[in-house]
Amino acid sequence: MSYENAIRSMGQKARRAARIMATAGSEARRRALEEAAEALGRAGDRIAQANAEDLKQAEERGISGAKLERLRLSEKVVGEMVAGLREVALLPDPLGEIVRMWRRPNGLRVGRMRIPLGVIGIVYESRPNVTVDAAALCVKAGNSVILRGGSEAFRSNRCLAGILRESLEKAGLPPDAVQLVETTDREAVLEMLKLEDSIDVMIPRGGEELIRFVAENARMPVLKHYKGVCHVYVDESADLAMARGICFNSKVQRPGVCNAMETLLVHEKIAESFLPPMAEDYRKAGVELRGCPRTRALAPECGAAVEEDWAAEYLDLILAVRVVDSMEEAMEHIAAYGSDHTEAIVTDNFERAHRFLEQVQSSLVLVNASTRFNDGFQLGLGAEIGISTSRLHAFGPMGVEELTTTKFVALGDGQVRT
Amino acid sequence: MSYENAIRSMGQKARRAARIMATAGSEARRRALEEAAEALGRAGDRIAQANAEDLKQAEERGISGAKLERLRLSEKVVGEMVAGLREVALLPDPLGEIVRMWRRPNGLRVGRMRIPLGVIGIVYESRPNVTVDAAALCVKAGNSVILRGGSEAFRSNRCLAGILRESLEKAGLPPDAVQLVETTDREAVLEMLKLEDSIDVMIPRGGEELIRFVAENARMPVLKHYKGVCHVYVDESADLAMARGICFNSKVQRPGVCNAMETLLVHEKIAESFLPPMAEDYRKAGVELRGCPRTRALAPECGAAVEEDWAAEYLDLILAVRVVDSMEEAMEHIAAYGSDHTEAIVTDNFERAHRFLEQVQSSLVLVNASTRFNDGFQLGLGAEIGISTSRLHAFGPMGVEELTTTKFVALGDGQVRT
Repeated sequence: MSYENAIRSMGQKARRAARIMATAGSEARRRALEEAAEALGRAGDRIAQANAEDLKQAEERGISGAKLERLRLSEKVVGEMVAGLREVALLPDPLGEIVRMWRRPNGLRVGRMRIPLGVIGIVYESRPNVTVDAAALCVKAGNSVILRGGSEAFRSNRCLAGILRESLEKAGLPPDAVQLVETTDREAVLEMLKLEDSIDVMIPRGGEELIRFVAENARMPVLKHYKGVCHVYVDESADLAMARGICFNSKVQRPGVCNAMETLLVHEKIAESFLPPMAEDYRKAGVELRGCPRTRALAPECGAAVEEDWAAEYLDLILAVRVVDSMEEAMEHIAAYGSDHTEAIVTDNFERAHRFLEQVQSSLVLVNASTRFNDGFQLGLGAEIGISTSRLHAFGPMGVEELTTTKFVALGDGQVRT
Repeated sequence: MSYENAIRSMGQKARRAARIMATAGSEARRRALEEAAEALGRAGDRIAQANAEDLKQAEERGISGAKLERLRLSEKVVGEMVAGLREVALLPDPLGEIVRMWRRPNGLRVGRMRIPLGVIGIVYESRPNVTVDAAALCVKAGNSVILRGGSEAFRSNRCLAGILRESLEKAGLPPDAVQLVETTDREAVLEMLKLEDSIDVMIPRGGEELIRFVAENARMPVLKHYKGVCHVYVDESADLAMARGICFNSKVQRPGVCNAMETLLVHEKIAESFLPPMAEDYRKAGVELRGCPRTRALAPECGAAVEEDWAAEYLDLILAVRVVDSMEEAMEHIAAYGSDHTEAIVTDNFERAHRFLEQVQSSLVLVNASTRFNDGFQLGLGAEIGISTSRLHAFGPMGVEELTTTKFVALGDGQVRT
């Protein structure tokens, strides 16, 4: 195993750095992030040069279009990274918070105190800005991070990680709190996945194939960010104008992301008044509809949905539409075909709104709002490292707090067990 | 793969049952547990017979002593299971709780609601009472559970799981919320560990070898319960009488468990007044001491500690003792040799008490109390399924709440993203 020792040594350095980070204090972590924001702002040329080399090589390898664009660190993207670092720096420090405290009959006061998770491993694909965005959140929460980016962004990532490490050092923190795996071979990822004693959690960010590879091979827990087959259910008691706005926004505002609606479920009682104008809105926006027979009867330009459409994550201007007899049928459809990501109901009925909210087991359930709100910024977490579809530890958007855990603390005056 | 289909089918049944359990309501879950308590109380003969067959076979295979005793379902153990079921039944329902709710600038109200984890897999070794204790907590929190007990307890486990399934059915809940893997081959465990789509989390309970096997092969997250190398640090400002009581209790009250103290650290300033009488207490209780040279100078019967002693989990009446120059040295020792399980400081100094509490990163950190309190019942969780040494999701004792997760809920009046 050629990488075994190098990767294992990174794990040990990360663990040592994590111990220091955990108790380094709020101010040093904040300063490191502000140093990084400044340094990044000043390093435009250095970043552009590294990125240009990555882009050149990618083009030589025949990469083009959206994939090439994801690789590009334009001035705008660098500006966003700088702004992101400043925002994260200013978030409240999650560490040290006593999330609850109670007293036992023997007088022992018991509480839970928020502490860092420890060492976080992040494996990601092309976008080099993940290097900065993800590392910033890990540092804010007092963790160490080992980053392994895509091979095509290698020079860009190395440049960005270098700036972060210098900033940690300037703030008196261990630079090894941010480490980049400098080999682009998948063997190196496999070695990372064996380090259960050095890495507390792995977060793969990328396509389904990458996530499966990490989940199958990791010995530590993995926080997965799988697909979103998101639904809006328009209830018989919906305000139809509101429903049109929500259904349009959920599908059209940004169709290529995981919180966009993929299937629209419409109660039969309002289908006749709701579907024709809704279909017209979609037609104007260039959305292709694939519907059940009852939908097609009301929206003549709608194609026929086949079984695969109900489970499809189109990530495109395509929408599956189904008329249902009841909210129960809508919830059964969601349970059968959904991916537990984001589901919304549009209704004015109090009882059904609350029943939907309670019974649908997705990472975000909305009443009378767009599915597009499943996002750490939009929900008020300040920033996000991704949207977890794993139920353990964090379900839904993960912000700074989701990169922490709690330990128990107990304050006594001599208590012993009898 | 002979077990592949059988185990996969169990996973699918568990997932279906979990959907029903999640929304079945508090009362049905409570009733199922009370039904089980009653049924277990009535089934003494049936349990005794199944257990006798397991015991007979174990004896034929040469199992004896403590291992045989762990297998025995005496009347006392059955009584404890019944009492445990009643206690868990009466715990507050964790589900549906809104753990926090806030309002966004656009008027969207966003909160987190407690929901079940889903499907929990538990792999355990000899004690058959785990079948009942673990399943009860999973059911209380609205989960399905797939149990895989030790082969030597197979008939006992089948009998107990059967009673639990009947009780679920009587309460109108799906019996498949509790399933027992009825093959004792390790291949069956391997098949379980592949079911990342059906099992949300694995909890191995048993020796280190079992835990490593599960962690290495599982594709889903694993909550580990590793060893406890627990420390008590007696500070220079300790009340020496209190310190003697805590150090005695931490080592002697039940030496064979993970929250017993394994290493005692003593500040040099009080070593001379503290160690000789403490050593005498230990001598009377039959505790073998292994100390550093400074300890040995003060406690003549103390043996010499070697490097391995500092990392040892004796689980026996043996104690490593070291005199340190400062609290910092004590904390460095703990970081170097400890297992992040349970650490206590005995001190009357406010600043040092709080610094120790903040800086030591173990699952329970105590001031002026015995390490033996690291236990779900003792800390007030009502019951526990184990003590997690994984930092993700749950760190320390896991009660009913740790068998849940939260989803986001959002209440709007037509909000869309712009």
